[in-house]
Amino acid sequence: MIISPLAPASTPDLPPVDGVRLAAARSGIRYKDRADILLVELTEGTSAAGVFTQSLTASAPVLACRDALKSGKARALVVNSGNANAFTGSVGVASVARVVDKCCALLGCAPSEIYTASTGVIGERLPDEKITSILHKTADTLSESAWNDAARAIMTTDTYPKMATRQAQIGGARVTINGIAKGSGMIAPDMATMLAFVFTDATIPAPVLQTMLKEANASTFNCITVDGDTSTSDTLLLFATGKAKNPAGDYTDFKKALHEVLHELALHIVKDGEGAEKLVTITVTGAASDAAAKRIGMSIANSPLVKTAIAAGDANWGRIVMAVGKAGEKADRDKLMITIGGVTVAKNGEADPNYRESQIETHMKGRDIDINVDVGVGKGKATVYTCDLTHRYIDINGSYRT
Amino acid sequence: MIISPLAPASTPDLPPVDGVRLAAARSGIRYKDRADILLVELTEGTSAAGVFTQSLTASAPVLACRDALKSGKARALVVNSGNANAFTGSVGVASVARVVDKCCALLGCAPSEIYTASTGVIGERLPDEKITSILHKTADTLSESAWNDAARAIMTTDTYPKMATRQAQIGGARVTINGIAKGSGMIAPDMATMLAFVFTDATIPAPVLQTMLKEANASTFNCITVDGDTSTSDTLLLFATGKAKNPAGDYTDFKKALHEVLHELALHIVKDGEGAEKLVTITVTGAASDAAAKRIGMSIANSPLVKTAIAAGDANWGRIVMAVGKAGEKADRDKLMITIGGVTVAKNGEADPNYRESQIETHMKGRDIDINVDVGVGKGKATVYTCDLTHRYIDINGSYRT
Repeated sequence: MIISPLAPASTPDLPPVDGVRLAAARSGIRYKDRADILLVELTEGTSAAGVFTQSLTASAPVLACRDALKSGKARALVVNSGNANAFTGSVGVASVARVVDKCCALLGCAPSEIYTASTGVIGERLPDEKITSILHKTADTLSESAWNDAARAIMTTDTYPKMATRQAQIGGARVTINGIAKGSGMIAPDMATMLAFVFTDATIPAPVLQTMLKEANASTFNCITVDGDTSTSDTLLLFATGKAKNPAGDYTDFKKALHEVLHELALHIVKDGEGAEKLVTITVTGAASDAAAKRIGMSIANSPLVKTAIAAGDANWGRIVMAVGKAGEKADRDKLMITIGGVTVAKNGEADPNYRESQIETHMKGRDIDINVDVGVGKGKATVYTCDLTHRYIDINGSYRT
Repeated sequence: MIISPLAPASTPDLPPVDGVRLAAARSGIRYKDRADILLVELTEGTSAAGVFTQSLTASAPVLACRDALKSGKARALVVNSGNANAFTGSVGVASVARVVDKCCALLGCAPSEIYTASTGVIGERLPDEKITSILHKTADTLSESAWNDAARAIMTTDTYPKMATRQAQIGGARVTINGIAKGSGMIAPDMATMLAFVFTDATIPAPVLQTMLKEANASTFNCITVDGDTSTSDTLLLFATGKAKNPAGDYTDFKKALHEVLHELALHIVKDGEGAEKLVTITVTGAASDAAAKRIGMSIANSPLVKTAIAAGDANWGRIVMAVGKAGEKADRDKLMITIGGVTVAKNGEADPNYRESQIETHMKGRDIDINVDVGVGKGKATVYTCDLTHRYIDINGSYRT
């Protein structure tokens, strides 16, 4: 496998989060030579928050997670890669129930405290017996330090494991936030994203946790796209074990740290976008609203013509104009300004007379492409992230099942 | 250049349309070794209808055409390929005006009777003097039979010229409809399409013509997509010279023939989609409305994951489920039925237990892929057309300007 050229030089060492133990195992559902199951045990009293795909064909685990989340409590998370258990009807729902039941027996807890997630091929029955038969043995290997193994076990077409960590202060107590994520294709999160799991030892009630998670998600996972295709399985879960025993209080610092963890994981997903060679940051300003700015940004970020031009190192900014035009949001054609790599290429509705392509040649050849578009009608702004569209995207997706 | 494998074995010979004369010429705007200018002279009394891109960054020629169309009359059409004259500000508007003025002087008519269209790179100034300087000489070569030359002069990344012809009866008189079109990438028409020009000798008042054109366009050009990118220059014009002198009357047969011409041209654009190897026909039934069915169909047709799987001959129908789920339209997951090549692959919200991939292996390897999706909530239906997403799309779009 070719590792994404945008992968970090090294993966971070995640510290333990008090109240969280992890174990990875091999079930052989699809991948024969690597771990494909993740079991996370959470201490009693852990509160939970989550956001999920808005897809109308959401997977069985997503439906089950939504249900469980009503309790606001969590004792375990079970994830498998290689099979999404999506579009599997009542059989798929029964599969989730059997995994949850087995987990309840193991930990002595209620079904509403177990969360599951599955990622991989859509429409194939999940052979849940391969999970339930090894859960007990897997629990024997639970450890506070298996973060790298955990991040690897949930990968599908990912080329590197995705992890992030931060520390924050709440009411004078120090808390840790660890996050892991997977995702590479079928990335156009709509209120949620691919699989991402975030753990903290902070003491935070579930409703507060949920509000903070939704807010941080809006400007992180919900602002990335690889291919404009929204998954059936997008799941972002945040668990707070409460072991830090911080007082309730000012969450400003925690929110900032949570945002940083989510932002870092979201960027990792783009950097590991299928076939990605370049990270593209698109900032739209001057829109009628922030939502309008995001839609214009996503129209640019999802344009195959913009993405293939960037892959080729071609500053074909006319395609950016096209993508602004098709977004369906207000834009003043005669005030439109486009900046690439800090150089103004177009303004006042036409090419900047002082612009020469040689000015941004080096920028276009680099790994990080920065595009700024001001549409000249208001104060709305948004930043979205995507990658380029290369031959490898087609290779990966033509051969995924075979 | 590699000719699309979906190109017809031979192009049709278009008969003359009384009142229409055509000439192609070389201006050297971009292409050095081929004709890139089309001049069409229309007889006095010709009525006109048109639909255009809904892009907010519409090109200067599109703005001028919309204006001209208010007259309902036409005497000439001037088209250039290689430069779209889009996002060129007031300079672009002035370019169109100079071409129109020159044409008026040549034919002795009003500016509101001249239509122009430009296709090619966005954001570069149109060197209109290269057009105006040869218009007079070009007019000397006008002929009733230059349909093939005309269809070739308007091509950009097209690999073959696109033509269609039909005859129809109006009130006992026989009329002819000829159409030519171009388009290969940036194809996701929104109320209109790339360039398509249709000519008839029928006598039909402009308002009637406009109604018929809009209706036929809705189920033809507006139901195709190559890459989900909507052009700044989409233009579909229909000219009726009135030379057939048919009585006003029952247009049923004419409408049917017009629909056939537009349908044939629209399919040609998909078959010549950049990098296309397969024509994909997607029929959605059981939707809440026809509009909902079309949006679901377009969600499938624009999914890069569906398109790359089809390119690889992989019946990865789970991606079709994903695309239905992300469309944002009502669908009953537990009634969803998917048929590929006439074989039921999924029904009642899961894989059909009787389905084996070997049943559709041959179909998936073929040039024509048929997908039917019933979403089980109502009576809405639509058929949309697209092509697969191959390596050649990336090659073409990475090197377009160089």
